[in-house]
Amino acid sequence: DEMLFNVSSRSMASKTPVGFVGLGNMGTPMAKNLLKNGYPVIATDVFPESRKELQDTGAQVVDSPADVAEKADRIITMLPSSPNVIEVYTGPNGILKKVKKGTLLIDSSTIDPAVSKEMAVAAEKMGAVFMDAPVSGGVGAASMGKLTFMVGGVEQEYNAAQELLTCMGANVVYCGQVGTGQAAKICNNMLLAIGMIGTAETMNLGIRLGLDPKLLAKILNMSSGRCWSSDTYNPVPGVMEGVPSANSYQGGFGTTLMAKDLGLAQNTATNTKTTIPLGSLAHQIYRVMCARGYANKDFSSVFQFLREEEGQ
Amino acid sequence: DEMLFNVSSRSMASKTPVGFVGLGNMGTPMAKNLLKNGYPVIATDVFPESRKELQDTGAQVVDSPADVAEKADRIITMLPSSPNVIEVYTGPNGILKKVKKGTLLIDSSTIDPAVSKEMAVAAEKMGAVFMDAPVSGGVGAASMGKLTFMVGGVEQEYNAAQELLTCMGANVVYCGQVGTGQAAKICNNMLLAIGMIGTAETMNLGIRLGLDPKLLAKILNMSSGRCWSSDTYNPVPGVMEGVPSANSYQGGFGTTLMAKDLGLAQNTATNTKTTIPLGSLAHQIYRVMCARGYANKDFSSVFQFLREEEGQ
Amino acid sequence: DEMLFNVSSRSMASKTPVGFVGLGNMGTPMAKNLLKNGYPVIATDVFPESRKELQDTGAQVVDSPADVAEKADRIITMLPSSPNVIEVYTGPNGILKKVKKGTLLIDSSTIDPAVSKEMAVAAEKMGAVFMDAPVSGGVGAASMGKLTFMVGGVEQEYNAAQELLTCMGANVVYCGQVGTGQAAKICNNMLLAIGMIGTAETMNLGIRLGLDPKLLAKILNMSSGRCWSSDTYNPVPGVMEGVPSANSYQGGFGTTLMAKDLGLAQNTATNTKTTIPLGSLAHQIYRVMCARGYANKDFSSVFQFLREEEGQ
Amino acid sequence: DEMLFNVSSRSMASKTPVGFVGLGNMGTPMAKNLLKNGYPVIATDVFPESRKELQDTGAQVVDSPADVAEKADRIITMLPSSPNVIEVYTGPNGILKKVKKGTLLIDSSTIDPAVSKEMAVAAEKMGAVFMDAPVSGGVGAASMGKLTFMVGGVEQEYNAAQELLTCMGANVVYCGQVGTGQAAKICNNMLLAIGMIGTAETMNLGIRLGLDPKLLAKILNMSSGRCWSSDTYNPVPGVMEGVPSANSYQGGFGTTLMAKDLGLAQNTATNTKTTIPLGSLAHQIYRVMCARGYANKDFSSVFQFLREEEGQ
Repeated sequence: DEMLFNVSSRSMASKTPVGFVGLGNMGTPMAKNLLKNGYPVIATDVFPESRKELQDTGAQVVDSPADVAEKADRIITMLPSSPNVIEVYTGPNGILKKVKKGTLLIDSSTIDPAVSKEMAVAAEKMGAVFMDAPVSGGVGAASMGKLTFMVGGVEQEYNAAQELLTCMGANVVYCGQVGTGQAAKICNNMLLAIGMIGTAETMNLGIRLGLDPKLLAKILNMSSGRCWSSDTYNPVPGVMEGVPSANSYQGGFGTTLMAKDLGLAQNTATNTKTTIPLGSLAHQIYRVMCARGYANKDFSSVFQFLREEEGQ
Repeated sequence: DEMLFNVSSRSMASKTPVGFVGLGNMGTPMAKNLLKNGYPVIATDVFPESRKELQDTGAQVVDSPADVAEKADRIITMLPSSPNVIEVYTGPNGILKKVKKGTLLIDSSTIDPAVSKEMAVAAEKMGAVFMDAPVSGGVGAASMGKLTFMVGGVEQEYNAAQELLTCMGANVVYCGQVGTGQAAKICNNMLLAIGMIGTAETMNLGIRLGLDPKLLAKILNMSSGRCWSSDTYNPVPGVMEGVPSANSYQGGFGTTLMAKDLGLAQNTATNTKTTIPLGSLAHQIYRVMCARGYANKDFSSVFQFLREEEGQ
Repeated sequence: DEMLFNVSSRSMASKTPVGFVGLGNMGTPMAKNLLKNGYPVIATDVFPESRKELQDTGAQVVDSPADVAEKADRIITMLPSSPNVIEVYTGPNGILKKVKKGTLLIDSSTIDPAVSKEMAVAAEKMGAVFMDAPVSGGVGAASMGKLTFMVGGVEQEYNAAQELLTCMGANVVYCGQVGTGQAAKICNNMLLAIGMIGTAETMNLGIRLGLDPKLLAKILNMSSGRCWSSDTYNPVPGVMEGVPSANSYQGGFGTTLMAKDLGLAQNTATNTKTTIPLGSLAHQIYRVMCARGYANKDFSSVFQFLREEEGQ
Repeated sequence: DEMLFNVSSRSMASKTPVGFVGLGNMGTPMAKNLLKNGYPVIATDVFPESRKELQDTGAQVVDSPADVAEKADRIITMLPSSPNVIEVYTGPNGILKKVKKGTLLIDSSTIDPAVSKEMAVAAEKMGAVFMDAPVSGGVGAASMGKLTFMVGGVEQEYNAAQELLTCMGANVVYCGQVGTGQAAKICNNMLLAIGMIGTAETMNLGIRLGLDPKLLAKILNMSSGRCWSSDTYNPVPGVMEGVPSANSYQGGFGTTLMAKDLGLAQNTATNTKTTIPLGSLAHQIYRVMCARGYANKDFSSVFQFLREEEGQ
């Protein structure tokens, strides 16, 4: 079996070059962590400045995804959305134009799992292996190599993927067949959005009813209302330190990014005829927040959005 | 200050009789725990069988709340809803008809905090002190004396209340002025409902997208989607043991009770002009579940409610 | 039957004085229309300026609702909310303190129908008859005597009420027992709010998809999407003339008033365990609009609220 | 310009054969109406029985869409969903495999407008013209030739399309560029769904508050709550005759079909970042109704779905 032979040759020669496509805010620190771990990196991006920055750190830079595929048999992609992924893999200068048999393709973008599955089918036709491995954790976690990867794809390739992903992340979780990494990411973020808006509503209601916000958070956190948004990332200014609500909702995870992920959740739910009433409403709330000036604030700013203005 | 004098005479004579009004599923085990802790109990209820049961355990039974008030200067009430509380306190045979000055009145019912405040004003006119102290935890916790009490009322009376409540609960939390106990209870249950429906939607979506439910729960619980409903009371059959989802959604906290608490949350939000989009939708979902045959199932059965029927 | 005797003496002497309590933006033009129709008016209000204005138009002004009740056996009240109605009828200087047997009490305030029923019971105890008759139509309709009255109360009193209401309105509709006038008003406004938000969402979506707004309105209005908000009060600037959307959403029916009516709808739904998912969400949307600066704009400004700002 | 020449030769020879692909419940009566109007029809469908039925009525039947395209330069397609449309146009035996230059392609399916645009681009590459022309009106309207067509595409081709569509419909509306026919259809049905659920909630609330349903409908229909669902298709049994609510919600427009159209509305809204809170919730409500046994009932059965069961 030629493909398996290639796989095993990959594993044996682990410090051979690794390709990287997509050098944005997340991709650049991820690629740097591969370099730090001793992997030669062959990278590209549409923006020359991004290519230049990585070149200065020691990576070899090439012109297109196809060129990356010519020189590396393990490639990581980190792109903003589904159309970019489709272009980078199947476009005229895409990876699949020159991919070698047995190449391991790991996509860390957050996209529709249906697109991940299409890419896997297209890769398989060329004798390559595609896995989806979206991340949780932001730019800070990417810099420190503390991301969490949720990985979908054929199980026998998981170890090969894990070897690279552990250079960039603290947790690597195998989720199942292709697309389940995306599914896990989307599910987590949908529940996160619901928990955050729910916490914001609840804290606001409690304050209006005369409760001290710190005390209310404490009560919720020892009770059945407890959630990550109440005990780790409380949206009410003054309740916790070191979170965006303590810093005018700067930094953190932007409202537009949350709106995007909820759009993916909505699409997958519609396509699978799944009922998600709170997830749908959370999507609409983050969407209207983008329209009302909250696009670049942390998603916990929903607390501020819901609170009345006058006389407060 | 006569009132303070009475208060302090109460504290000194702590094993004097305690009154108890409302001997339902919750009230009966609570009253029994007072007896176990050595307090004489003077009780009443509208149902003769309930009175009989407590009499057999050693309580003295009287005919009306007014009669209880004549014989005890510390009284606990545990009733189904606001109208019952209004009747028991201010009705023709109500507590306030014969209450003694300085009596401590503790209401453990879950009701509208505005009603708690009204009762406090009415009690104060008679020289008595009213505190709200709703509970979390069900019949099991009531039997084992493991309830959590959230207490609202004047702070200098809190110690006196705590002395009795610790006989019936494992946690007693002081929340602030009268009504804040109710507020804390309502806030917790609103966030609980949101978290539960959110968890049900998310688990359902993940399963549809090919994820194993146990694995998905594990991923959520180590990520930002984590909440009490995902890690302690998961609504998907087969994920956890010892929870209602493992037992056809029997036992636990019934959908009608959750719908009632969400109705209280909605009322307080409307009255205070607080925006609670997810809380309102959660209320509507539990309301329609009551209409569609889920009234007596545990509230985690929302997972079953949202799932499509076979063959569609 | 003394009460019936009084009723019939009322009908025979129709130009005897009519009482009026509540001289706000709506009450003042309503009372003036009674004067225009030849009825002596005995009025009061908490604000001296309002009393003065009506006095200058020919009304007799007195100090309190009780004083009105002493001098008139037909009284109309027009007040902002439930607590005002309770005060004006049952307060220390309230109408029921001095009401004469057989007096006809017509409340045109928009309030909770449960409060209307309580007032009717209290009135009946004094031998008086209470009817609820909330209006639709704004200040303009009030000035021109073109209001619509929805009337609840005992049917045999309806003619007596109608005689007065036709001086102030173009339509008077008998709805049934006490409280059903309020019910009809609340129901209409809930469906109005849903239709308006739905129209705003739909027009916005169509525009984003490349449709001309006037053409889209035309298509909807000849199809099953047709509603009052699409064909008579379109929320999109440029589609219709003479509506608030053509005038920066000034005038019309303010967002705070709609939020108030939706709060009443929510309360009655919660109390009757009725599921109103869209009505609840409409309430929350108008609530958050009040918080975000839309309080005093016409309720059709939801179109503007939902549209994205940046880059459009 | 060869394409324009072909177009004009089409117009001149108007009774040349017309192709028809998709002989389902809607397509079959539509094709029959073309036959009735004197157009030879060349048709195909995946199901032999459907082909047979149309053959018996006088149509020529061929094996594939490609074969239709070989023999007709005006083709109408009527298919269940986007993937079918993509297959019929661009699949291995699809229309575009053998389409003649200048052919007029009219797609009456209800699909995502983005897919309509893709088909138009693909058709243009082959020198053909694609228009979207979804319908409103059900099987009855299709049989009687009373459908409404909403047409998107280049304006100079509209007359040619109109010639054929008027054989099958009573109204043909030109909406704008390709995709706007779909947009108009989707917008109308989204507002229809919102109006229907809103009417159901409102009627239910009014009945609970003591109003007679016929009277309430009458009041709404003379007021600002008026909409097509209240005045033409009332969902409450007993209010109107000749509508599905008068016939156990049989016939009419099925809940699954409405859920599908709302899914399209949601997709287009997500893709264009449009906020549709009520539209989203309406989608979720029809989705959960499909899951709870209402899939094949008329969409006005939401009234029944929301009502509480007896005895609660």
